[in-house]
Amino acid sequence: MGSKRPARREFLKSGAALAGGFTLGAAAPAIGQTPASPAMIKGDKDYIAYGDRSRFVTSVRIAHGGRPSPDAFGLVFHVAAPLQDSVGVITPSSLHFVGTTRGSYIPEIDPREHRLMIHGMVDRSLTFTMEDLKRLPSVTRLHFIECAGNRSSRRAKTVQETHGMTSCAEWTGVLLSVLLKECGLKGGASWFVAEGSEEVKGASSIPLAKGMDDCLVAYAMNGEAVRPQQGFPLRLMVPGFEGIFHSKYLRRIKVVDRYYMNYNDYGHLDQEPKVAALGFQIGPKSVITFPSGAQQLPGRGSYEISGLAWSGGGAIKKVEVSTDGGKRWNNAEIKGTAQRMAHTRFSYQWNWDGQETELQSRCTDEIGQVQPSRAQIAKYWNKPFDATFSVPGLDNSIQPWRVASDGSVHNGNA
Amino acid sequence: MGSKRPARREFLKSGAALAGGFTLGAAAPAIGQTPASPAMIKGDKDYIAYGDRSRFVTSVRIAHGGRPSPDAFGLVFHVAAPLQDSVGVITPSSLHFVGTTRGSYIPEIDPREHRLMIHGMVDRSLTFTMEDLKRLPSVTRLHFIECAGNRSSRRAKTVQETHGMTSCAEWTGVLLSVLLKECGLKGGASWFVAEGSEEVKGASSIPLAKGMDDCLVAYAMNGEAVRPQQGFPLRLMVPGFEGIFHSKYLRRIKVVDRYYMNYNDYGHLDQEPKVAALGFQIGPKSVITFPSGAQQLPGRGSYEISGLAWSGGGAIKKVEVSTDGGKRWNNAEIKGTAQRMAHTRFSYQWNWDGQETELQSRCTDEIGQVQPSRAQIAKYWNKPFDATFSVPGLDNSIQPWRVASDGSVHNGNA
Repeated sequence: MGSKRPARREFLKSGAALAGGFTLGAAAPAIGQTPASPAMIKGDKDYIAYGDRSRFVTSVRIAHGGRPSPDAFGLVFHVAAPLQDSVGVITPSSLHFVGTTRGSYIPEIDPREHRLMIHGMVDRSLTFTMEDLKRLPSVTRLHFIECAGNRSSRRAKTVQETHGMTSCAEWTGVLLSVLLKECGLKGGASWFVAEGSEEVKGASSIPLAKGMDDCLVAYAMNGEAVRPQQGFPLRLMVPGFEGIFHSKYLRRIKVVDRYYMNYNDYGHLDQEPKVAALGFQIGPKSVITFPSGAQQLPGRGSYEISGLAWSGGGAIKKVEVSTDGGKRWNNAEIKGTAQRMAHTRFSYQWNWDGQETELQSRCTDEIGQVQPSRAQIAKYWNKPFDATFSVPGLDNSIQPWRVASDGSVHNGNA
Repeated sequence: MGSKRPARREFLKSGAALAGGFTLGAAAPAIGQTPASPAMIKGDKDYIAYGDRSRFVTSVRIAHGGRPSPDAFGLVFHVAAPLQDSVGVITPSSLHFVGTTRGSYIPEIDPREHRLMIHGMVDRSLTFTMEDLKRLPSVTRLHFIECAGNRSSRRAKTVQETHGMTSCAEWTGVLLSVLLKECGLKGGASWFVAEGSEEVKGASSIPLAKGMDDCLVAYAMNGEAVRPQQGFPLRLMVPGFEGIFHSKYLRRIKVVDRYYMNYNDYGHLDQEPKVAALGFQIGPKSVITFPSGAQQLPGRGSYEISGLAWSGGGAIKKVEVSTDGGKRWNNAEIKGTAQRMAHTRFSYQWNWDGQETELQSRCTDEIGQVQPSRAQIAKYWNKPFDATFSVPGLDNSIQPWRVASDGSVHNGNA
């Protein structure tokens, strides 16, 4: 330290290429001269009790698809997270995506009145209050939830529209296995059904093996109580499974000996138990969040390409980025330690030459699953990969972002 | 799975001891009978854009010491986080403690106008816009910030009062070393001074070795922009150092060749550079957040003792809990992987026999530092450990919580 190391000016080395590069000090206030003091705002009592963000920060959730869309079961209202503004791996609770069958109506539950009953093929049924649950050993884990409907389309313009139905939070609660052991499992028990307090109850059949492995009865997210839109006061976490299994307002778990098709299964789950059991898990998936659709690069030069990767199969082991439409793939940097079934932030430092190109990312998870391209998925399903193609089932395809020579960024699937 | 395992009913095994134990299913709604549907609330447009917590969740920050306290430099207004309600290791941004010299007045900065200038003993001064900074390689790290004034007293009743001036968040930004390398360091450069936009500027001298190691120029926390009360749009993170070094509204860094005493150093920093350089770092510290002062245990039985541990010396390696006033120490469980200079959640499963006792926790960090008792600190400073004793300097002493036979919990230092 202390020695001159001009050779280390790595980002300015590319000098002229860095359009809008850092300003030399001369253009800033002279040394020793104090810049003008900024305006002051006065926080009121509420602001001291529970702070808020700056009025200059306007990132918000949007209705998925731009509008509420009714289906056979009533009003389905999905709200997508602004991934284009995301940093790190935590989704702020206020911006966590919402998938619901109740539109913007949310059950309002007094936690003192809430109960979780476990019954069915158990030695004895038990009912837990919130206080009971908080006395048991807790775990805290970073996990994503993704809606099965999270998919890219030709119509979508932004990453919020293509991928905003996934979010990640630090969840705290009791392992479901702890509760099931308290009840005692009867011979033959092999599935369980979880029911929440929504009118459409979110009840789904889940393999008991999953319940005894890593399912979590969560009462907190991101350091405070689970938010009402996420199932306050209690949510079932089924790490790596489709979002619909993560029942909100969890009030009942029934241990059963077979797979049941339930009211809330939407018909997208397979009627065959074995196929269904294998089809629940989110595949390896990644997306570049910057630069992404509808964003604008100010000019050629150095940028940090940044994005998220996740998989129902476990921890992300590798992320690759292509800056030439998939011809060459470069290893991206994984930020920090990748957690199992959690968003993982990756980055790749890129020097844009100002020419039109296409950016892509693909990930590999700890069990070796590799994120496929849409062309590979079409081939797998033996369908022509043309303008009519849409991914059947869960869509974990590679998302291409086309960068035009004017720096504008567009959906490469459009 | 599927076999009866009554022996695994670990928590109910202690049967009668678990006062208020889980209710057998018979007391709950009969199996197959649907509990009454809860009331529904309708989220408005704002609620869809940016969600809020349940009205049943009322955990809030409080003014530290219960009131604003004026000092020689004006109104000092510290706001403490409600650690008694904390779970996991993330402090929600709305509940992150605030240390400020400006009371509830907060600089309101338009990020498009904000600049960071680096000057002094560098080859060339540079000025960065927020956009410049976001194009550089980013890092995301979990770090605590703790105010040097975070200390237990005889007067304090709750853990919010004794320890609420520490919080932990996922911070994202650019390593200061990246910026300093861009500027190029001159021979003899050995310290730097960081200045924010507060009227009392938070300028403090920091060893350049720390700046080249792990200091972070942070533009985001917990997945969104840094909050105004935390320095929006830019905060200097100095991991493990006293909170006062984490300059908010960061606008200028001057590289210098000596230690400066600055306006905002409060006189609590040593005038001797070598002493000061060693005195900046937060010692190993832990506290039990449940059960803690002013909480009430409903009766004897099984409880999860839960708390937080952290150290300026690196990652927490061990936490021990005593349930008999420090006579015997038991290894606590560390939840997840302890991060460097970050809150670490620990727990210890405890069966309370209903007798009066005292709970304590102590931690050891990765460089072997062990959290001391107040008696040990008194001995170190060669002072009598009596009713007049208060910890000189930073207070990282063991916090005792006295549990009375009626289940009420009290500050053991009182």
